[in-house]
Amino acid sequence: MTPTFSAVTAVNAAGNGTYTGDISADWTIGGKPNGGYLLAMLGRAATAEVAHDHVLAISAHYLTSPEPGPVTIETEVLRSGRSASQVRVRALQQGKPCIEALATIGTLDPDVKAYWDGGLPALEPLDRSNGVRVEGFSPTGLPIAMMSQVDLRLDPSSLGFASGQPDGTGELHGWLQLLGDESFDPFSLVFAVDAFPPATFNVELTGWVPTLELTVYVRALPAPGPVRVLQKAQLVDGGRVDEACFVWDSTGRLVAQGTQLAGIRLG
Amino acid sequence: MTPTFSAVTAVNAAGNGTYTGDISADWTIGGKPNGGYLLAMLGRAATAEVAHDHVLAISAHYLTSPEPGPVTIETEVLRSGRSASQVRVRALQQGKPCIEALATIGTLDPDVKAYWDGGLPALEPLDRSNGVRVEGFSPTGLPIAMMSQVDLRLDPSSLGFASGQPDGTGELHGWLQLLGDESFDPFSLVFAVDAFPPATFNVELTGWVPTLELTVYVRALPAPGPVRVLQKAQLVDGGRVDEACFVWDSTGRLVAQGTQLAGIRLG
Repeated sequence: MTPTFSAVTAVNAAGNGTYTGDISADWTIGGKPNGGYLLAMLGRAATAEVAHDHVLAISAHYLTSPEPGPVTIETEVLRSGRSASQVRVRALQQGKPCIEALATIGTLDPDVKAYWDGGLPALEPLDRSNGVRVEGFSPTGLPIAMMSQVDLRLDPSSLGFASGQPDGTGELHGWLQLLGDESFDPFSLVFAVDAFPPATFNVELTGWVPTLELTVYVRALPAPGPVRVLQKAQLVDGGRVDEACFVWDSTGRLVAQGTQLAGIRLG
Repeated sequence: MTPTFSAVTAVNAAGNGTYTGDISADWTIGGKPNGGYLLAMLGRAATAEVAHDHVLAISAHYLTSPEPGPVTIETEVLRSGRSASQVRVRALQQGKPCIEALATIGTLDPDVKAYWDGGLPALEPLDRSNGVRVEGFSPTGLPIAMMSQVDLRLDPSSLGFASGQPDGTGELHGWLQLLGDESFDPFSLVFAVDAFPPATFNVELTGWVPTLELTVYVRALPAPGPVRVLQKAQLVDGGRVDEACFVWDSTGRLVAQGTQLAGIRLG
């Protein structure tokens, strides 16, 4: 049976703000651990250090890609506040830092409703039952082991790239669900904003698009069920691409947003 | 004569990766130093520590608002790479940390052209000569000293809020220019993504909208002249709002992007 997301991102307190975890070889793309998966693990360690329960904002800079296997996570509480606390957190392997992140941890109130949602243009109603599951290998031949650990479906309108006809939008629309009936929570939402294939696939196919920086805002506690995801690139320039990500829960509420800067071999 | 942006964000090396600076009382909104202005100062200190010249990505979490006056900035190089280096940087007053940030510093090639730009919907051509300069006090009565240090103009289509008729879009379009004929560079672009009034003014007026997290990507070296800015809120939920910002140089090239999570007294 596939281990749950909670299990593969678990961290164990080792004293003095230090935690240990195990990076799963199954949560990789082309053998490299997924950046959002790793950041969820860092978010767990940061949250364990403070009195609040939910990641509100977390920003990571990726120094080198860690390998699957044991990882040490060090935390330092920068400020302990009444409504939110800030924590510095970093992942190390063999004493060498791989990722450093800053997290603002607070409390998401389950009874609060969104006050104003600007909506997004061009978001037609889509039907998940038409979604096409992504699994196996990327169009450029990278093994995408992680995709067998989740149920990730793309809307048929986003699948042009798979048949050599990218639509030029730099957007991917689809859905994400955790396996084993696990519901999303703020930690798995941190992963959700980096789960999709590169949105640039709908411009031009490339190999690995390594994340340099990833920032995630968790905006609300998600309702049970799959989330809907829009991954959107804006600009490819100087060998780098940005991607914005929006995640809605099964009730249509915007629950997480992400932005990343990544390296790309185009241009 | 108004001091240049370079002068008011200058930092002086004090040894061991430590810098000193002086937070200007003129670069404040309601007496609080602007978050992007402060982050530009941190970007300078981070860049001074490494062999690369340009901020590519910087992510800050704001712990407490510093006061105008002397500030100490501590840096630590996390990784020194061939094409980019990562630096941790934080600002302290009276030994108390106010802001911590992570920066990826690299080199922007002046000869590279954008490879692909997805464009933004609903970006009509606008004419800066119609722009209305923002100065004096905010509509809710906050003194906006900083606005006298820059030439910030809003497009008339974004000015509904000023006459009590917000258009409900959560967007502000306009232009920004530094005074004294100073051209933009990667440091002042870090400021540019946080220079505009809250985009939520075009939903509902509020007082101070304190930045909790701010991430900036500098995408290219800007051409001389004013930059065009789009500031866009997406969601007000749980007393927090996100704002995305896009900055184009005078040739229409997208040169910087920002995203922030801020506190807001709505809902």
